[in-house]
Amino acid sequence: MSKKLTSRSQDYSKWYNELVIKADLAETSAVRGCMVIKPYGYAIWEKMQQQLDTMFKDTGHQNAYFPLFVPKSLFEAEEKNAEGFAKECAVVTHYRLQNDPEKEGKLRVDPEARLEEELVVRPTSEAIIWNTFRGWIQSYRDLPLLINQWANVVRWEMRTRLFLRTAEFLWQEGHTAHTTEAEAIAEAKQMQEVYATFAEQYMAMPVVRGAKTESERFAGALETYTIEALMQDGKALQAGTSHFLGQNFANAFDVKFTSKEGKQEYVWATSWGVSTRLIGGLIMTHSDDSGLVLPPKLAPIQVVIVPIYKGEEQLRLISEKLDPIITALKGNGISVKFDDRDTLRPGAKFAEYELKGVPVRIAMGKRDLENGTLEVARRDTFEKQIVKREEVVDVVKDLLIQIQENLYNRAIDYRTNHTTVVDNFEDFKKAIKEKGGFVSAHWDGTAETEDRIKELTKATIRCIPNDSKLEDGVCVLTGKPSKQRVLFAKAY
Amino acid sequence: MSKKLTSRSQDYSKWYNELVIKADLAETSAVRGCMVIKPYGYAIWEKMQQQLDTMFKDTGHQNAYFPLFVPKSLFEAEEKNAEGFAKECAVVTHYRLQNDPEKEGKLRVDPEARLEEELVVRPTSEAIIWNTFRGWIQSYRDLPLLINQWANVVRWEMRTRLFLRTAEFLWQEGHTAHTTEAEAIAEAKQMQEVYATFAEQYMAMPVVRGAKTESERFAGALETYTIEALMQDGKALQAGTSHFLGQNFANAFDVKFTSKEGKQEYVWATSWGVSTRLIGGLIMTHSDDSGLVLPPKLAPIQVVIVPIYKGEEQLRLISEKLDPIITALKGNGISVKFDDRDTLRPGAKFAEYELKGVPVRIAMGKRDLENGTLEVARRDTFEKQIVKREEVVDVVKDLLIQIQENLYNRAIDYRTNHTTVVDNFEDFKKAIKEKGGFVSAHWDGTAETEDRIKELTKATIRCIPNDSKLEDGVCVLTGKPSKQRVLFAKAY
Repeated sequence: MSKKLTSRSQDYSKWYNELVIKADLAETSAVRGCMVIKPYGYAIWEKMQQQLDTMFKDTGHQNAYFPLFVPKSLFEAEEKNAEGFAKECAVVTHYRLQNDPEKEGKLRVDPEARLEEELVVRPTSEAIIWNTFRGWIQSYRDLPLLINQWANVVRWEMRTRLFLRTAEFLWQEGHTAHTTEAEAIAEAKQMQEVYATFAEQYMAMPVVRGAKTESERFAGALETYTIEALMQDGKALQAGTSHFLGQNFANAFDVKFTSKEGKQEYVWATSWGVSTRLIGGLIMTHSDDSGLVLPPKLAPIQVVIVPIYKGEEQLRLISEKLDPIITALKGNGISVKFDDRDTLRPGAKFAEYELKGVPVRIAMGKRDLENGTLEVARRDTFEKQIVKREEVVDVVKDLLIQIQENLYNRAIDYRTNHTTVVDNFEDFKKAIKEKGGFVSAHWDGTAETEDRIKELTKATIRCIPNDSKLEDGVCVLTGKPSKQRVLFAKAY
Repeated sequence: MSKKLTSRSQDYSKWYNELVIKADLAETSAVRGCMVIKPYGYAIWEKMQQQLDTMFKDTGHQNAYFPLFVPKSLFEAEEKNAEGFAKECAVVTHYRLQNDPEKEGKLRVDPEARLEEELVVRPTSEAIIWNTFRGWIQSYRDLPLLINQWANVVRWEMRTRLFLRTAEFLWQEGHTAHTTEAEAIAEAKQMQEVYATFAEQYMAMPVVRGAKTESERFAGALETYTIEALMQDGKALQAGTSHFLGQNFANAFDVKFTSKEGKQEYVWATSWGVSTRLIGGLIMTHSDDSGLVLPPKLAPIQVVIVPIYKGEEQLRLISEKLDPIITALKGNGISVKFDDRDTLRPGAKFAEYELKGVPVRIAMGKRDLENGTLEVARRDTFEKQIVKREEVVDVVKDLLIQIQENLYNRAIDYRTNHTTVVDNFEDFKKAIKEKGGFVSAHWDGTAETEDRIKELTKATIRCIPNDSKLEDGVCVLTGKPSKQRVLFAKAY
């Protein structure tokens, strides 16, 4: 193992970048802004995918796959959406390379192989999917149409960070069509709740459920529902969004259905997505100066077992005792790694698994062999206990549940301590500047005030929380009347 | 349901195209050569993925994810590989669109946003992966490195067909690095065997395991191992390939390791892949003039249950009897669809599930209600039987096993009947032209003869079978000496 991580208090951003690399999660690639997701990072993504996919299917959605490319003429059909993404589109213009006549052994783009129409690499798939939906929807009997896609998308971001903002990223995008406005809104809200449940119960990451203001909405949406998490440095992370798209895409792509009454009507739409950005959120919610801390439900390795031995014979004796324990743990659906490498000392192994955030570590040495015990350590609190062999499976099962809960509770406590209710702009600025976190304040509802506050403090309105109650108040900046508090924060 | 399928004997190619559309597997898209994989087709792909992924992990591989784009300078580093794919590369040249000053509401490529270096959309990922592996491999302790990626790739094919040949397709690509030549060859052969096992035991599609001739090898490989299946029209389908790449990529990307003896050596490589093309093979191996026939192990719906009723009350009574059966089938891990739609007659439903290849259909009507029976029909043979309610779960379990076996045996019989051993060119031409299928013949080992035979008959050498025994013979075309028979066929 290489030297220690930069501490969070020293430089949070540097700590994050180092951790992603050292814990073997991802690295930058030869392509500007694109990352390589390494096996350990990808294993976390697979766990997330499996759980989300189950939740999507349980709510009636089916997976499908649509083309990577969007012809420019389709892409521009829904104008607001096109305008929102035009500035960050990778564009395919040619379909062939040829030998470069001027440089031996080198290739160049074949000027003869120019596409008649340029192809946009999808930054999101509404256009190509709604163009397809037109053929799938004739009657109310074809609705609701509930489709999800697991895919890669490309947005040519200028400032990138591993997982949080990359030019290419992996995500899922749900696209649904409905007969009524009410049903589409209910769907969009349902998927916001699915995301929130996943974040809280699996990632152990509490989120605020809310709606975006008009200026923060998805390009082409009438309403964007969001889940907003709070990172350890007091900045918010938009972790998932679900959009009510009204009839904008149905209009742009002429998608109509015959109603029960025999009338031709435009369908109502939603779309919703979460991405590999969630891994960034997972890291920044729980990890510490020793490395990654993973919630047991998403940890690729839940338990690591390290034998502490001198010589083959001692290893054999220790392994003999560990074998039935490993079998029993696996039989309980727990993922276990047994690390008996002789190329690394136990201390180095301990540091490695701390760095990688394995929730539970079991060690067994000569002393344990004699006493019929093992040492069980938890990653979240570093607490250790000596456990009898016959009790270890139950102890570990309990511990995994406790760690999952503890991580969630710690994060909730952090958020509670970093949510400030303010009623004037001095307190607002002070809270944002000195304490960070969420600031709950009255706002006059105008985009101008929103922009001005951002200019002055770098804080944006993260959302109008679903549970924000109506109360009379005055805008912290302008003193104009307001009916409701909204949540501000600096954000990733 | 629309009108009947074209029959296979009438026009096999038309039958295939119609079937893919009518069974709701896939359709063409607005992007030339790219397909939309519809939910039913994608569900088959998910079943394939799950099984293959398990088999890859059981053989020690880990998943990771590498960028979609390959900078041109990396792409051209391994010259043979680059040359092999250059003519079918989609190329990204720009990273932004802007409003078209000449056409209101339209977009155009921003001429200012030209990339300094063009990006190739990956047709395969050796280049970007080996460029990354250089950073992952220092010592023999880092080897073997066993990586797999599930991804989309793009090859700008001019003549495309749904699943069989599309500009974009989904696949997995394994990329491994080893300390020795022998170990890399063993890995490539192991993955050929994994593919063959999957094809035979899950797809019920028999395959010939063999090696490609030099002219049919993957660009950049020293040896390509293949599995070759035979379709019902007598044409062969290359269903999966596994390549021994020697040290070509290690050389091109300077990937060395320190051996146990402290020496710097280039590593040895393999790559291997199967794609959504397998779905085309699955269709053409088993399906018939009534539609799709799916092997139970890959069928998204294994059993469909259709109640035959008049009025709500009868439906209620029938459903009451079916409920515990559905629960029991699901409890046995069988996927069941209960179709009580009142918008379609039973006959229309039967035709729909025949078209979609559901292996077992259960019907229950008034008569069955009185007699305590159900009608059970199998898709592969159309046989029906009347079964007592208390026996139906066991009957279905048996039937699913029988259907899986029967499909495999039918395909083996077809292949046996369509494999012809010939010893002269007249018989060769006759077999290829009149009977189709595999033709086993001696060949003099030269690319010239291979090309000439292709010109004359359209047949190519599918492989040198692994089990082809050494025997003295003479080339069917040239009469020159040969040591071994090879397998010819016309191919997809």
